[in-house]
Amino acid sequence: MPVSDAATHGAEDALTALTDLVQADLEACNRLIVQRMHSPVALIPQLAAHIVAAGGKRLRPLLTLAAAQLCGYRGDRHVALAACVEFIHTATLLHDDVVDESALRRGQASANALFGNKPSVLVGDFLFARAFQVMVADGSLKVLAILSEAAATIAEGEVLQLATQNDTTTTQAQYLEVVEGKTAALFAAATRIGAVVADRPEAEEAALESYGRNLGIAFQLVDDALDYAAEQERLGKTVGDDFREGKITLPVLLAFERGDEAERGFWRRTLEEREQGPEDLAQAQALIQRHGALRDTVARAQAYGDAALAALEAFPDGPVRRALAGIVAFCIARAR
Amino acid sequence: MPVSDAATHGAEDALTALTDLVQADLEACNRLIVQRMHSPVALIPQLAAHIVAAGGKRLRPLLTLAAAQLCGYRGDRHVALAACVEFIHTATLLHDDVVDESALRRGQASANALFGNKPSVLVGDFLFARAFQVMVADGSLKVLAILSEAAATIAEGEVLQLATQNDTTTTQAQYLEVVEGKTAALFAAATRIGAVVADRPEAEEAALESYGRNLGIAFQLVDDALDYAAEQERLGKTVGDDFREGKITLPVLLAFERGDEAERGFWRRTLEEREQGPEDLAQAQALIQRHGALRDTVARAQAYGDAALAALEAFPDGPVRRALAGIVAFCIARAR
Repeated sequence: MPVSDAATHGAEDALTALTDLVQADLEACNRLIVQRMHSPVALIPQLAAHIVAAGGKRLRPLLTLAAAQLCGYRGDRHVALAACVEFIHTATLLHDDVVDESALRRGQASANALFGNKPSVLVGDFLFARAFQVMVADGSLKVLAILSEAAATIAEGEVLQLATQNDTTTTQAQYLEVVEGKTAALFAAATRIGAVVADRPEAEEAALESYGRNLGIAFQLVDDALDYAAEQERLGKTVGDDFREGKITLPVLLAFERGDEAERGFWRRTLEEREQGPEDLAQAQALIQRHGALRDTVARAQAYGDAALAALEAFPDGPVRRALAGIVAFCIARAR
Repeated sequence: MPVSDAATHGAEDALTALTDLVQADLEACNRLIVQRMHSPVALIPQLAAHIVAAGGKRLRPLLTLAAAQLCGYRGDRHVALAACVEFIHTATLLHDDVVDESALRRGQASANALFGNKPSVLVGDFLFARAFQVMVADGSLKVLAILSEAAATIAEGEVLQLATQNDTTTTQAQYLEVVEGKTAALFAAATRIGAVVADRPEAEEAALESYGRNLGIAFQLVDDALDYAAEQERLGKTVGDDFREGKITLPVLLAFERGDEAERGFWRRTLEEREQGPEDLAQAQALIQRHGALRDTVARAQAYGDAALAALEAFPDGPVRRALAGIVAFCIARAR
């Protein structure tokens, strides 16, 4: 499913377009993040700055800011709540890297590799608590309910991922449950909050929740496809991480399902028994390629992306809606 | 500072007395804990049950229940909030054991030893999020503010503890900051909430906060003394953990301060350079004994205990106040 460079380029422009639309809010949000991650215990801002400054795309807070703007919100509560979303995301990244024993995050040494596992666990806890302090200062029990439920769902998704790791009998339904928990729940909460602060009707809240959830699933499917991609340059993370850790993702599930007995033996040896030789990642990539598993994973992502686009139709056309639609293309274009 | 068996026995009775006074509430709280730690992801209740059922004393939720009763509270919100306090405590225990690489907790194999570090981190996150969900359902922004601040302070205390680990230049002020964060903050929040649900005047809230904070400091000082005690049977945890991990606690600070250059060399070798031989724990215990460092740590705990007792004087005498006073004696008697 090759897409022209022009289309990919257009997708990158979508992120820029969205960022431009909420520029002032994003800058205020970044200032708040730096301000609120301060602590008299110096190691906390040091470690937090490492991961926050490493400069992710700020995709989740961007979504909160844009969703609020889409709903015609005029106040400044969305800025603080976008920072909460980023704190929760950062806390889960810190704990994920400990759990995954990752050495890289966004193309740089991960916090656990640099500072050790212990501070990563504890600074994650701090950021999580701080997110709730900022929400409490905002004062909306509804927002608190949405984000505390998202946090519990994220943890459930992560635990389920652990429980299915190294298990080739994992079903696609279980895999999707992991994805909905570990990734889509926070996307859904981030966008829904935009409608909540703007005090919009239930239908718009549900539409933004659906946009975020479907976008989040598409995002994770593409991420899982990229882990078996030929080149790793565009990722800023190591190709083959999921394979080495024995994570059961859709590309593997599809290749396993479509493979013969010898191929299933390969997957069981490498993922279940964790016996991996130096040629095995290339072999895994070849099997996934042969069965069209990457192509079909991306197609599945596209279907979720289409559902995200459909949800946006609850809102009138305009620059913010177009930019949010562009984000769907941006997430999927990463795989191409 | 030997205390008669009768006094120790009397102190044990204090815990029983307090438990008896809030028996029905405690049972409701235990039911709620079991109910709310449920998740469709089976590993979560399995792991959580291991630590929750291992049966700590439920000291912190007991304090919330008793404080509410002391304030004449008649509703049932304190039951759910006591469960939140226990969830936050359990989450920090799970993360502590990962951070400390502990093999034992409450005399049993710790969750991380049994299930691995990864689920311990993630189930800790789940319990923390679940605590906030239960608070949100309760609906008090004031309680949410108190417990989210406590959670942030706990994390700060834990990070500061890491930063001072293996550092014999740690000051007593830094040590106290660690203790106030990692232990006293949750005790203080647990008792303060009792006055908040009962809607009592600020002065009673402050009195209960002071009782909890001072009790928590006394509790931790005694814990730190017990880690160098002669016998480990009464602890249900291994003597010498702090020494092996190079934690800088008051017994060590006092012995270091009072020791000669050779003794300081011993502390630097064992705690800073982490070179420990099979006889070193006994040597550490002997030095601490020789300088009266255990005795003086317990005396310091007693002074904080006295402050906790003084705070109770804001309330009229009665069985609950007497039982809360007995808890101070109970915490300190553990060291004798």
